[in-house]
Amino acid sequence: MIAPPYNDRLLRALRRQPVDRTPVWLMRQAGRYLPEYRAIRARAGDFMTLCQTPELACAVTLQPLARFPLDAAILFSDILTIPDAMGLGLSFSEGEGPQFARPLRSAADIARLAAPDPEGELRYVMDAVRLIRRELAGRVPLIGFAGSPWTLATYMVEGGSSKDYAQVKGLLYEQPEPLRQLLSVLTQAVTDYLNAQVAAGAQALMIFDTWGGILTPRAYREFSLDPMAQIVAGLNRSSAAAGVPVILFTKGGGAWLEDLAATGCDAVGVDWTVDLRDARQRVGARVALQGNLDPAALYASPERIRQQVAQVLADFGPGAGHVFNLGHGVQPQVDPERVRVLVEAVHELSAPYHSGRPS
Amino acid sequence: MIAPPYNDRLLRALRRQPVDRTPVWLMRQAGRYLPEYRAIRARAGDFMTLCQTPELACAVTLQPLARFPLDAAILFSDILTIPDAMGLGLSFSEGEGPQFARPLRSAADIARLAAPDPEGELRYVMDAVRLIRRELAGRVPLIGFAGSPWTLATYMVEGGSSKDYAQVKGLLYEQPEPLRQLLSVLTQAVTDYLNAQVAAGAQALMIFDTWGGILTPRAYREFSLDPMAQIVAGLNRSSAAAGVPVILFTKGGGAWLEDLAATGCDAVGVDWTVDLRDARQRVGARVALQGNLDPAALYASPERIRQQVAQVLADFGPGAGHVFNLGHGVQPQVDPERVRVLVEAVHELSAPYHSGRPS
Repeated sequence: MIAPPYNDRLLRALRRQPVDRTPVWLMRQAGRYLPEYRAIRARAGDFMTLCQTPELACAVTLQPLARFPLDAAILFSDILTIPDAMGLGLSFSEGEGPQFARPLRSAADIARLAAPDPEGELRYVMDAVRLIRRELAGRVPLIGFAGSPWTLATYMVEGGSSKDYAQVKGLLYEQPEPLRQLLSVLTQAVTDYLNAQVAAGAQALMIFDTWGGILTPRAYREFSLDPMAQIVAGLNRSSAAAGVPVILFTKGGGAWLEDLAATGCDAVGVDWTVDLRDARQRVGARVALQGNLDPAALYASPERIRQQVAQVLADFGPGAGHVFNLGHGVQPQVDPERVRVLVEAVHELSAPYHSGRPS
Repeated sequence: MIAPPYNDRLLRALRRQPVDRTPVWLMRQAGRYLPEYRAIRARAGDFMTLCQTPELACAVTLQPLARFPLDAAILFSDILTIPDAMGLGLSFSEGEGPQFARPLRSAADIARLAAPDPEGELRYVMDAVRLIRRELAGRVPLIGFAGSPWTLATYMVEGGSSKDYAQVKGLLYEQPEPLRQLLSVLTQAVTDYLNAQVAAGAQALMIFDTWGGILTPRAYREFSLDPMAQIVAGLNRSSAAAGVPVILFTKGGGAWLEDLAATGCDAVGVDWTVDLRDARQRVGARVALQGNLDPAALYASPERIRQQVAQVLADFGPGAGHVFNLGHGVQPQVDPERVRVLVEAVHELSAPYHSGRPS
């Protein structure tokens, strides 16, 4: 049996239950802005070694928690572990982002793909989850994650990051059938992967749909939203995963919050281009909301950061169902002390919004 | 007196008057996807020479009209001519995008800026407008344009294109006062520049707000929308510019169509992430709409392109007030014959939506 964490603010907020303070964690809270991360990354040699060595992934996951009173840990890994395990050969070159040695170039390439065994090729991820859970010792919950099938597909077809997504969109507009096949195998792969993370100890799940926002509304619903909805439906809620909350986040998906909320997920991540007050009016009765400070606000002075935090808290307003986060990841140039200001401001300034709760 | 163009579909549609066919033009319809553009660009040596030589700018402007039955010409130029004329030293390196030799680095840099004289440092633009109008001989209307003050400010502060806009957002969050000064001088500069384009012969105007979509709703309203609204109010509608329609386009601004429509502009450009049916319901009673095919649809076969065009036309539905366009510029890798397919499909497939008009 997995004991509940001592600090259960995140899990309570995701279930829209009362809390004493708004919980806060940050996308990319473990990462390049931390000198201790850069040190361990330099020793590891390359990024994939960090991900594939459970001891290193665990150490990196815990680094921001040693500095800041964050309310959650998130597994240190990459969304592209799945395509790598499918044989595409992932590497990261300095400043260039991810690169696949064998990107998908034909319908035949797609037809050959199979969902990887999460306790086989991806066992290193599950070992990291198990190790992190042990090391966390219940202090805060551990969030597991995966990329959305559409987002994984964009990288697998483009071979890496892209400026205009010419190849994957060419496929979408000209050969939707192979794209549907690709999304189908990825939907299975992500479902298996997330279920395995929960079995290994993840206490909440997040699906990052980084590139859903580049689609038309019609294409979004078919190629990005629908696979995510299938994943939500396919999570083993009946067994170990019962009650493990799921967060869906489509960057640039502010127009589709209602659709995301209707998938059966527990929370929807929102980026900073959305007014949290509007978002809450639109879907706050169905799901919790996670977000949404502009990551660039962390370039400001402590005083201005506190003002911006206060604004986000005021936008959500009183009551349960808010998880504070940035609208996207912490940027590498950010001063870690600014992150401390943010985390402390969330806890301090959110208290009045939760004063209805018996202490 | 400026004679009305023979083909007045664009101007009629922008005024939401009946037309026989939906007018169509494309952002970046003159550009790298055309071999004749690449040839003239190679002869010119660099991009700025093209912009600064009225004969070349005119030749390039007319190239797509010689190929396709487009319903408008748009001045060939760049949004960054204004900052260049303000002394920032613009150049374009191959594949790198725009670069300023002297980006804004301090409040003192900003305090020194003044709006350039459109018939002084920017006379080459007005000469191009005059020449193009003469060469067009009234066949189709000529659209003049400028970048939004916020969009110009991002390039001027970052020194070129940016991935995370750390510098200009740092300014926004930490030193909003110098940013306000910068936007104020740019608002004056863009107003003068557009008024001069109209005086030189531009028959419609478009403001490109390429980077408004990276802002929070609050910051968008103050730093991007409000300067555009001031420009719209400052156009010489009483003189030569009377009745010259203005199109505002915030890429990624689908959430803010109502705000854009309330500025007093005549039309709002929408990118492909917005459903044109929803957009029309929201603001179609106040403004015309321009858009919104995904530029990547041009990678598909002629048959699929026609399907996508039919979908956009169906989304807008019957009646006046639609200008067909892409949701962003034509991408350089596109086959020009696919552009022909698109233009012809718009004219052919839109006729039934305008059948109420006496021929």
